[in-house]
Amino acid sequence: MGRFDDDTRVEARPDTTFAGEVVDGWDIAGNANGGYLLAVAARAMATAVERPDPVTISAHYLAPGRPGPVVIDPQVVKVGKRFTTASATMTGSDGRPVLAALGTFGSLEADDGGATLVDAAPPDLPPTEQCRPRSGGTLPPGGFMQRVELRIHPDDVGFSFGAPTGTMRIRGWFRFVDDEPVDTTGLLLVVDAFPPTVFNSGLAIGWVPTVELTAHVRARPAPGWLRCAFTTRFVTGGFLEEDGEVWDATDRLVAQSRQLALVPRPPTPGN
Amino acid sequence: MGRFDDDTRVEARPDTTFAGEVVDGWDIAGNANGGYLLAVAARAMATAVERPDPVTISAHYLAPGRPGPVVIDPQVVKVGKRFTTASATMTGSDGRPVLAALGTFGSLEADDGGATLVDAAPPDLPPTEQCRPRSGGTLPPGGFMQRVELRIHPDDVGFSFGAPTGTMRIRGWFRFVDDEPVDTTGLLLVVDAFPPTVFNSGLAIGWVPTVELTAHVRARPAPGWLRCAFTTRFVTGGFLEEDGEVWDATDRLVAQSRQLALVPRPPTPGN
Repeated sequence: MGRFDDDTRVEARPDTTFAGEVVDGWDIAGNANGGYLLAVAARAMATAVERPDPVTISAHYLAPGRPGPVVIDPQVVKVGKRFTTASATMTGSDGRPVLAALGTFGSLEADDGGATLVDAAPPDLPPTEQCRPRSGGTLPPGGFMQRVELRIHPDDVGFSFGAPTGTMRIRGWFRFVDDEPVDTTGLLLVVDAFPPTVFNSGLAIGWVPTVELTAHVRARPAPGWLRCAFTTRFVTGGFLEEDGEVWDATDRLVAQSRQLALVPRPPTPGN
Repeated sequence: MGRFDDDTRVEARPDTTFAGEVVDGWDIAGNANGGYLLAVAARAMATAVERPDPVTISAHYLAPGRPGPVVIDPQVVKVGKRFTTASATMTGSDGRPVLAALGTFGSLEADDGGATLVDAAPPDLPPTEQCRPRSGGTLPPGGFMQRVELRIHPDDVGFSFGAPTGTMRIRGWFRFVDDEPVDTTGLLLVVDAFPPTVFNSGLAIGWVPTVELTAHVRARPAPGWLRCAFTTRFVTGGFLEEDGEVWDATDRLVAQSRQLALVPRPPTPGN
C-alpha cells in the first residue's frame, strides 16, 4: 500500500496480543507522533475485533513513544450487532505502557440513507500551491515531516517565523508524501499531524504533551488531499483543548477530534 | 452531602472491584442517564487511583443501565507524578457490561498560575426565572427530571412543544433539585443532563443512544447554578456529535464534553 500502511503493521501472536513496531521516522524531535502511535494500536484492535473502522476511539498517552518493538493487548469488552468495543494498552520494550486506548469499531459503509444535517463547511483554504509547506525555524529536522505533506493556510502560518497570529487556529491541507490513500486508521494520524494551535497564541513554543485524544471517524475518506482545521478556545489551569475537523475531497466531514494537552512551558534554566 | 452523592456511592470489595448501585430515579423512561452511570463508575475509579478529579474520561455505552446492583473493576494502567490513568468496566447484575471507561485522574487545585487565554464566553442566558423548566409533551414522567433542575433558554425550548427551532442547540441552567454542590464527578452527569440538541432539528424525537461520551473537567465548580450550552453540527451517516460546555457562577469554564450518538429513528410499525 504505502509507507504508513507498512509502518503501522501488526502481527497477531499466539497469546492474543499483537506485536508492532514504532518505526523510526514518525517522530518530532525523537518522540513518535501521538496519532501514529494510536494508529498502530488501532490496527491491532481492529484486527482483534474484526471490524475495520475506529468509529470512536480515545487514547491516553502515558510515555513518549520511542522507536522499537511494542506489544498491544486488545481486550474485547462487548461484541454487538453493529459495533464491537475493545480496550488496549501499548507497551514498549522496556515494559512500560506508552498509551491506553478504548474504542468502538464498526463498518462505515456508504451512507445509510438516513437524515443528513450539516451546520458547517470545510475550511476555506487557498489552493495547495498557495499554502505553505510546514517548515521554518521552529521545526526540528527530519522525522515526521518527511512522511507527511502539510500545506498551511498563509493566514495561520505566522508561528513558524516568529510572528504568531494571536488566533489559536491552524488550517491546512494534508496528504502522505507518497500520496498513499488515507483510510480510517490513517485519519487517527491526520487529527494529530498539524503543529499545535497554541503555537499561534504567543505563548512559548515547546513540547505540548497530549494527555488524551479522542477521534470520531465519521466516514471513509475519498482519495485526494484532506482539508483540516484545528482550533483552541481555552488555555486554563495548565491545560488546553484542541478541536479538529478533517474533510475529504468530496466536501464531506470524515473525522472530528478533540485532545486535552498540557500548556507548553518555556525551558527553565537548570532544569 | 446530597442525593447525587448518596446515589453514586461505591464500596470497595476485597478483590479490588467496587460494588455500586444504579439507583432508581435517575432514568429517562427506564434507562439510567448516561452521565449518572459514568459518575458511578468514575467514583470507583477515583477511589482506586486515589486522585479526586476525572481530568479526562471517556465512556463507551454498551447496554442500557437498569436499576440494581453493579460492579466496577478499575484497573490502574499508569501512576504518574501528576496523573493516574485507569480503565474500568461497569457490569450489571445479569453479568453483562453496561459501560467501559478510560480516564486520567488528577487534582484540580486552584489555578496553577500559568497562562490563561479564553476565546469564548459563557452562554448568554436570561435569569433562571425567565428560562423554562424542562417539561412538556415529549418528557416521560418521573425519573431523572425529579432529580435535576434544568432551566432552558426560551429561544431553545421549541422542541418541547412541537415547534423545534431548527437550530441544534440547547442552552440552559443546571442544578440538583436539592441544590447539592456539584463536584467534578457531578460534572460528568451535567454534561449529559440536557435534552438532545437534535430534538430541535425537526427530525423525529426518540431515544438518542450515546455510543461514547468524553468529558474534560477543567476546574472544580464554584457553588451555584451552572450555565450549559450544547450544540450539534453534523448529523451524518446515522451518527451525530453533541458538544457541551459547562460554566460556573464565576464565569469559568469547568467542563467540556463531546459525545457520539446514534440518530433517533421514528418507531417502525411492527418493530
